Amino acid sequence: MFKIFSLKNGLENVEGFYCDGVNVGMRQNSIDGDVAFIRSDSLCDISAIFTTNIFQASPIKHFLKYPKDFKTDFILINAKNANAMTGEQGILDIENIFDSLSKHKKVTNPIMSSTGVIGYRLDQEKIISSFEKFDFNSKNSDRTARSIMTTDSFKKELSLKVELDDGSIFNIAGICKGAGMINPAMATMLSFITTDANIPKTDMDELLMEAVENSFNKISVDGDTSTNDTVMLLSNKKSEVYNKDAFREALNKITFELAMMILKDGEGANKLVSFEVKGAKNMKDAQKASRALSNSLLVKTALFGEDPNWGRIASTIGASGIDCREDTLNIYYDDLLIYSNEFRELDKSREDKAYKIMKQNSFKVICDIGLGDASYTSYGCDLSYEYVKINAEYRT
Amino acid sequence: MFKIFSLKNGLENVEGFYCDGVNVGMRQNSIDGDVAFIRSDSLCDISAIFTTNIFQASPIKHFLKYPKDFKTDFILINAKNANAMTGEQGILDIENIFDSLSKHKKVTNPIMSSTGVIGYRLDQEKIISSFEKFDFNSKNSDRTARSIMTTDSFKKELSLKVELDDGSIFNIAGICKGAGMINPAMATMLSFITTDANIPKTDMDELLMEAVENSFNKISVDGDTSTNDTVMLLSNKKSEVYNKDAFREALNKITFELAMMILKDGEGANKLVSFEVKGAKNMKDAQKASRALSNSLLVKTALFGEDPNWGRIASTIGASGIDCREDTLNIYYDDLLIYSNEFRELDKSREDKAYKIMKQNSFKVICDIGLGDASYTSYGCDLSYEYVKINAEYRT
Repeated sequence: MFKIFSLKNGLENVEGFYCDGVNVGMRQNSIDGDVAFIRSDSLCDISAIFTTNIFQASPIKHFLKYPKDFKTDFILINAKNANAMTGEQGILDIENIFDSLSKHKKVTNPIMSSTGVIGYRLDQEKIISSFEKFDFNSKNSDRTARSIMTTDSFKKELSLKVELDDGSIFNIAGICKGAGMINPAMATMLSFITTDANIPKTDMDELLMEAVENSFNKISVDGDTSTNDTVMLLSNKKSEVYNKDAFREALNKITFELAMMILKDGEGANKLVSFEVKGAKNMKDAQKASRALSNSLLVKTALFGEDPNWGRIASTIGASGIDCREDTLNIYYDDLLIYSNEFRELDKSREDKAYKIMKQNSFKVICDIGLGDASYTSYGCDLSYEYVKINAEYRT
Repeated sequence: MFKIFSLKNGLENVEGFYCDGVNVGMRQNSIDGDVAFIRSDSLCDISAIFTTNIFQASPIKHFLKYPKDFKTDFILINAKNANAMTGEQGILDIENIFDSLSKHKKVTNPIMSSTGVIGYRLDQEKIISSFEKFDFNSKNSDRTARSIMTTDSFKKELSLKVELDDGSIFNIAGICKGAGMINPAMATMLSFITTDANIPKTDMDELLMEAVENSFNKISVDGDTSTNDTVMLLSNKKSEVYNKDAFREALNKITFELAMMILKDGEGANKLVSFEVKGAKNMKDAQKASRALSNSLLVKTALFGEDPNWGRIASTIGASGIDCREDTLNIYYDDLLIYSNEFRELDKSREDKAYKIMKQNSFKVICDIGLGDASYTSYGCDLSYEYVKINAEYRT
């Protein structure tokens, strides 16, 4: 057995890791930084999961050039420019930046991670200027988390302490960014998780994959998948403490809570809604229907309008291509059964109850397909005027 | 050879067909009708294509109960209520309505078609009251086209006269409705096409399928597929004239122009954009990428913002799951090459030209994948505040 405690702030709680963020003039008119680093004072194992977009950004291509299971002690992160669709030059630019870094700080196998506009080369001069500004011995998770934001309206960080039965302790912490372009199968998001747990590399790979599947891969803001999506887990083993079950639970908690922060910060979103599809014939069907709901424009606008228009829920299920029947389907808003095969007349009191549920900031839509045992839950948000505004004006 | 002439108005130009629309109180505060009919004074062959949504609405289920290749002389159409997700009762309601109709007008194998809110039984009393109001000998295509509108901001009708080399003539005309919930693989749309051409039933089926594939199946407003989508072609053979090539061209023209009217009327849309994907390895890839573009929220909001953010175009192609490479891809806005592997620096004059193109009401996005010969074009529109407003407030 073990206990998990939430700590204040983020990355500063993990032994041996340092981080900072500075503004080098790419993010204008802001006190927040635009370049950040996370480093360890000893070499780390690293597990990483990248975007499924075929046009992987240059920092991802640069990462993938390292040999399998390489160790690292330095991650450099920038906002405002994704360094994506920049070809071979984009990789050369990163190598050039790291050549300059080596004159300021000895690092091993440095990694870069970028987010921002697609299609332009990095401003190397500005990024390199950060190396004179960084305090490499800082543990400022707040500034780091703020420096990687794009359209985010708040920084996202989280830290947990895990205490095993014998009183031994390890720590795990994470930061992430992401507010739009969020889609199951990863999203425009960067997340960096650090731990001093003595976790073997094989467990890192296995547990990170599992944690991402149950968190970042279950949220949708707008159904788009970016060129830069990245989740990284770094471990420096400093605590010399490890327990697989405890680590699994702590990592799942970190990634799930970070994912919910992204969804709450969904561009222009006001409501966080979970879409549970159960009673499906198989997992594939459950997942397909659940994701169709969290991505549907008509469902999302109905959520924004606080309209319990369950017909759009039913229609989306029907269009999703899964096995389903009109007479076995049941739809609930929270605990309220709003559609069943027996309901054929408008029921005013039922509608009134549904309107009340829709007014909440957070609620459940549950669709029981009635044909099997498989279930899947994904998480979405409403689509507001604000989303359109943010994305119409993104580059201006 | 043959000539095709556009005629004024719509269904009134086809011999032997009658139509009208009246308001029975379901559409409130409007001079437009809410129930309409289209009938022929002789029996017609009918070809129909229905939604791919598994929850087909009751009028579609009612249609499918007739024997294959049945003939009909009457279609009844209502707005405001989709009669979908209404179970067996929804079909019984239609049968009851047609029992009443038979007391006013002798009809054979009548068909119903509905559009509106999902999940409630039809108001039979109101619909039946239309039978006393209809002028069954009217040829009022304008009132008919207006009566079937939902969120449409204008009526949609079109009529063509086809003259063959020997001077013989046949006519073809169509009306349709649809403004939102429009997606490739049909959409929330109803379309009724009438002809007096002497077309064999097998040609009707073949040519309607082909025409829908090249028109209604290529447009997207919001990526949703409704429970009620219907395209019907009725022929009464009255002209005794027919030529397959001429009919094909005329039918394609009717369905394509009606589809473009739907897109122009896309809820809150200001721009009509064609997404041509060419140079794809195969047709499946070309179609997949083209449809991903016309459905992407980020692409659609960038169009609304008149921002030539080609990075979102590239990212959407990359996320679509097709075979593609960064170094063979070329992206054009109209004739302007905006992305190629050679472009690695911001070019102010190129950007300025792109901004001008984006300000047009209509333009092309062309993506040359550079890996093969397959091409596919789909048509989309921008996503505006107005779309969110219309769909947030749809039922209220």
